[in-house]
Amino acid sequence: MPRTGASDEPRRSANWEARRDAIIDTSAGVFARGGYHATGIAELCEVNGLGKGAFYHYIGSKEELLAAIHDRVMDEVLLSADRVAQAGGSPSAQLAMLGDELLDIIFRYPDHVWVFLHEFPALTGERAEKFRLRRREYERSVEAVLQAGIDAGEFRDVDPRLTALAWLGMHNYTYLWLKARGRLSARDVAKAFADIFVRGIAGSPAHR
Amino acid sequence: MPRTGASDEPRRSANWEARRDAIIDTSAGVFARGGYHATGIAELCEVNGLGKGAFYHYIGSKEELLAAIHDRVMDEVLLSADRVAQAGGSPSAQLAMLGDELLDIIFRYPDHVWVFLHEFPALTGERAEKFRLRRREYERSVEAVLQAGIDAGEFRDVDPRLTALAWLGMHNYTYLWLKARGRLSARDVAKAFADIFVRGIAGSPAHR
Repeated sequence: MPRTGASDEPRRSANWEARRDAIIDTSAGVFARGGYHATGIAELCEVNGLGKGAFYHYIGSKEELLAAIHDRVMDEVLLSADRVAQAGGSPSAQLAMLGDELLDIIFRYPDHVWVFLHEFPALTGERAEKFRLRRREYERSVEAVLQAGIDAGEFRDVDPRLTALAWLGMHNYTYLWLKARGRLSARDVAKAFADIFVRGIAGSPAHR
Repeated sequence: MPRTGASDEPRRSANWEARRDAIIDTSAGVFARGGYHATGIAELCEVNGLGKGAFYHYIGSKEELLAAIHDRVMDEVLLSADRVAQAGGSPSAQLAMLGDELLDIIFRYPDHVWVFLHEFPALTGERAEKFRLRRREYERSVEAVLQAGIDAGEFRDVDPRLTALAWLGMHNYTYLWLKARGRLSARDVAKAFADIFVRGIAGSPAHR
């Protein structure tokens, strides 16, 4: 999978990349449980089974690690939006697909998403700006689907920005319970949510 | 306002209570910005303008402070559910009222809600259990309104638990943006959200 959000270090070997990814994933769990600010490099080295020198061979700083955790999620989220846009279909079907993909990512990356949603204020400077732009890019994808539906009369004349935020809240908030509750799969939840949301913004039948 | 979630210390003077509340509110801001784990008692004393001895005169421990921040939000949230239940009205109207009250609380307590949603795993033992029960109590209030609507045919036959989680996500997630965006008031947002949600779960006209 292309790592569109990869940081600016030079390309290394596949082994180096794989080891770095493993460190990112393990560290996401540590941050999720202990918090970003309260977790030190020493602890990160220990859980990853690395000395300090080896750790810095893979990751330039604790903040670079945090940015990499964000990118892991945002790469997938933005790719999902691209896939949905390319798949075409009605705005209702596209909104349902976006939700299905988003809940699948939240389900597969519970620690990353926890860190992502809780620790983003710890990113600074260019990293904060890059994250803000990527997050905004995804929001715009959702807004574009809503606007297409409004233009086609398939959705009523809602505020696309506010409605996208409502949709994002409904879906993103599943990070708190989707993992723990085995009763329903991510796909079942996405289906029920799409059903509520698409009916909730449906245009009047006369206009469809 | 009754402090139904007050901790188990003996009743003190109104002055003591007011000073304690001020410490809770100020500390919520500190936790929201710096994180619970990374904030020490020394810093809490400094921002509250208190020596260590004076600080402990009001708050027994850092975790008691965290629990008090939770209670501040949960007291209001549970009172709002009581008010809505007592007000009566159709399930659709009750759901809209619940949302209106919830967004008003999120709008008025941005720091407390940030801490509430991010740091609840730091509560331990009885405090964690009490918080879990109070949170569950509120969820049940939302589920009860949904079930009443289903029973009356006003709502279609949705899963009340899953639908309550969808509703909670849509509303709770506003903590990330409701404060910063001045374009719409909490009340406007609540109205738009209720409109989406009530239409989304509406029963077929034939059954209403």
